[in-house]
Amino acid sequence: MRENESSNARSSQPLSVAPYRGVRDFYPEDMGVFRAVEARVRSWIERWGFEEYGASLLEPAELYEAKAAENEEIAREQTYTFTDRGGRRVTLRPEMTPTLARLAAARAKSLRFPLRWYSFPNVFRYERPQEGRLREHWQWNCDILGEPGVSADIEIITLASSILTDAFGAPRESFEVRVSHRGILTALEGEYLSEPPPNPTRLWAWIDRKEKMDAAQFTRGLRDLLPFDDAKVMETFLEAGSLDETLSLFPRLASVSAVELLQEAQEGLTLLGVPWRFDASLVRGFNYYTGIVFEVFAVSGLRRSIFGGGRYDGLTALFGAPPIPAVGFGLGDVTLTAFLKALGLLPQSALSLDVLVVPLGVRQLALAQKHALSARKAGARAVALLAPASPKEGVGEALRAGARWVVFVGDHEEAQRIVTLKHLPTRTQREAPEEGWEHLLAGEPA
Amino acid sequence: MRENESSNARSSQPLSVAPYRGVRDFYPEDMGVFRAVEARVRSWIERWGFEEYGASLLEPAELYEAKAAENEEIAREQTYTFTDRGGRRVTLRPEMTPTLARLAAARAKSLRFPLRWYSFPNVFRYERPQEGRLREHWQWNCDILGEPGVSADIEIITLASSILTDAFGAPRESFEVRVSHRGILTALEGEYLSEPPPNPTRLWAWIDRKEKMDAAQFTRGLRDLLPFDDAKVMETFLEAGSLDETLSLFPRLASVSAVELLQEAQEGLTLLGVPWRFDASLVRGFNYYTGIVFEVFAVSGLRRSIFGGGRYDGLTALFGAPPIPAVGFGLGDVTLTAFLKALGLLPQSALSLDVLVVPLGVRQLALAQKHALSARKAGARAVALLAPASPKEGVGEALRAGARWVVFVGDHEEAQRIVTLKHLPTRTQREAPEEGWEHLLAGEPA
Repeated sequence: MRENESSNARSSQPLSVAPYRGVRDFYPEDMGVFRAVEARVRSWIERWGFEEYGASLLEPAELYEAKAAENEEIAREQTYTFTDRGGRRVTLRPEMTPTLARLAAARAKSLRFPLRWYSFPNVFRYERPQEGRLREHWQWNCDILGEPGVSADIEIITLASSILTDAFGAPRESFEVRVSHRGILTALEGEYLSEPPPNPTRLWAWIDRKEKMDAAQFTRGLRDLLPFDDAKVMETFLEAGSLDETLSLFPRLASVSAVELLQEAQEGLTLLGVPWRFDASLVRGFNYYTGIVFEVFAVSGLRRSIFGGGRYDGLTALFGAPPIPAVGFGLGDVTLTAFLKALGLLPQSALSLDVLVVPLGVRQLALAQKHALSARKAGARAVALLAPASPKEGVGEALRAGARWVVFVGDHEEAQRIVTLKHLPTRTQREAPEEGWEHLLAGEPA
Repeated sequence: MRENESSNARSSQPLSVAPYRGVRDFYPEDMGVFRAVEARVRSWIERWGFEEYGASLLEPAELYEAKAAENEEIAREQTYTFTDRGGRRVTLRPEMTPTLARLAAARAKSLRFPLRWYSFPNVFRYERPQEGRLREHWQWNCDILGEPGVSADIEIITLASSILTDAFGAPRESFEVRVSHRGILTALEGEYLSEPPPNPTRLWAWIDRKEKMDAAQFTRGLRDLLPFDDAKVMETFLEAGSLDETLSLFPRLASVSAVELLQEAQEGLTLLGVPWRFDASLVRGFNYYTGIVFEVFAVSGLRRSIFGGGRYDGLTALFGAPPIPAVGFGLGDVTLTAFLKALGLLPQSALSLDVLVVPLGVRQLALAQKHALSARKAGARAVALLAPASPKEGVGEALRAGARWVVFVGDHEEAQRIVTLKHLPTRTQREAPEEGWEHLLAGEPA
């Protein structure tokens, strides 16, 4: 009853036209760009043989409270979680990977691996809205499930890179793919530090934030987390510019399997033309990665991380299913759009009208609709004006809508069972029978 | 902390693979059908010159507590409404129309009317899940804003009907569009009942449910809501089979403007080939309709209402904006799919592979990826196997994936800088240079 009362109390003052905080309205011009970007990504991903899956954004809250969550802190503090009218706890998905693992686990025995799956879900995080950080955004998720070998890592990283270069024409110089493997950092800790880090989780989180602060601040924090000499070792490690340099400084890392994997991956990525670079400081602050991780970083225009991903073997085991090897990435629409815009590569929506049908009198309103319908059946994009207009007004409307053809129907046309057909680019006009005139649209007059 | 503890307590037992109750998972085969249906509707709607808009499913709760809601009972008892971490009350939209009104009101002064706008949002209702009634479904919304004349009603109803006949090829006999105008029922009450109905809201809700019960039950309820003689009048009115019959039984209704509008609409719908029928019992249990209402009812296969809509002038006034005339409909994906399935008209997804690249040895894994990338750049849908395979295994995989071409790369091909290219439909095989082989895909061998 309370809601009802408050509604009555409020009904005299106008409702706000603002959307909910931190989400977007899409007017047709915005939606056109959104769909144009979507179509480019989708068609490119599908050329890679990836198949689309989907699920509701409503998920049982437990899914993010277990170790399935990409980031426990986000799961705890930034999810939209509520209790439904039946007492079930529900979360608006903050990411797609737990859902993907759930779907794969449910059919682990009948699916035919390896799978190449993609999705384009909206995901939700309760955070203070700011530039590029919304509470809802759309995110491309591409994953290969069921292949433990590094060939899957190579394919996923190449796909990530080629969405930018091939689907949108971004120059290879406009970004770099920073690649690492968390096993290298673990091996460094074991081989070269004087003692295990007292708080490895906080240490890795600090390393993950390295790009976001200046060097002095980073060093101070590192010295709070490690003994003085170990902090110096770690700094040297993180600043190595290549895997070769890392290995010459820390030769005992050469026999670590993570390094062998990385070397194999980098050989493949070079052959495939991916602009990659080893980055020892790349951690990605997530729980579930188990192997190679990567991040695509814009180096011209924007200088920021655009998106990333990595290998997360075994997530399906949380569901009691066999552990399935997996590697994938998530690419958000807001960041992708900002990256493309900075490069002048944002595609534009190109829908314009082919035909405008103009009723010259009130009597011809329904007849105009009939002619528009005939044009649509012949494949044209057609609109009939909903109120009578003069020929001059009709041509004005058609030009505004980008239509190439105008069709007039007035008393004369109705009586003669014809239409008057005007081709705007050539300003030519003719009469045509009311049955079949639409087939003239296919051949533009000379 | 509580959530954290419960997560630890739970981590030993497996998570459920079930989705949240009343929502759907879309495996690739389901998603393929969903997208195939979506593509048909979208491309047909766009031929009508409708432009897509969108918005977040998160809306301020006030939007549905004011009179903007299609149905107050639903707004009160069936919405997903919760309080966010910042204390704001949020609702998962149960329908799109209030959002549309919000968007139009926000730019009422700068938008150029009439507008033809469509959207394909997911909408949410907390209800007991049952056949065809889910908690989340996707819904096509098409609306014309800014045109008060009946020409807009005619266009919207024709579009609704032609989605079934033209986008999917449904026979005109498979459904009927039931049309009415709420002004006729109001006029009947004023002109022919002995007194105003004591509870008009309950009366209209009862009439709205007429199709869902047998005649005796309906009559009993009607007699609880109206004096005996008035109930008999109402029954006669509701059972009239056509507008002509209604007018011959109740001649004083002929001068009612609602009847004149309906006659004009029906003339237009007949010209446009829409299978319409007047239905005096059509009320649609909603608050905001102000004029003609309609419902598309399946008459072969399924016998049930598929979708409906009508005119709802002035909703934008709730936002303090000028009242904008509007007419539209909402078509849900679940009902549409069931209708098409019953008629054997459900489109299928048709994505299959063009090329499978088979690495014959471990050394050729990355090279196979490179060849697949070349094929994609030439427009083909291509996959490289992630593990080496024999030629026989490769052909088996290719046949399963529906690929027409198989490309082999082994030590021989790598050394000679060639590929071996097999065309499966003709079982022909040839060698081709490793640079440029992909251009052979365009011309199938004779």
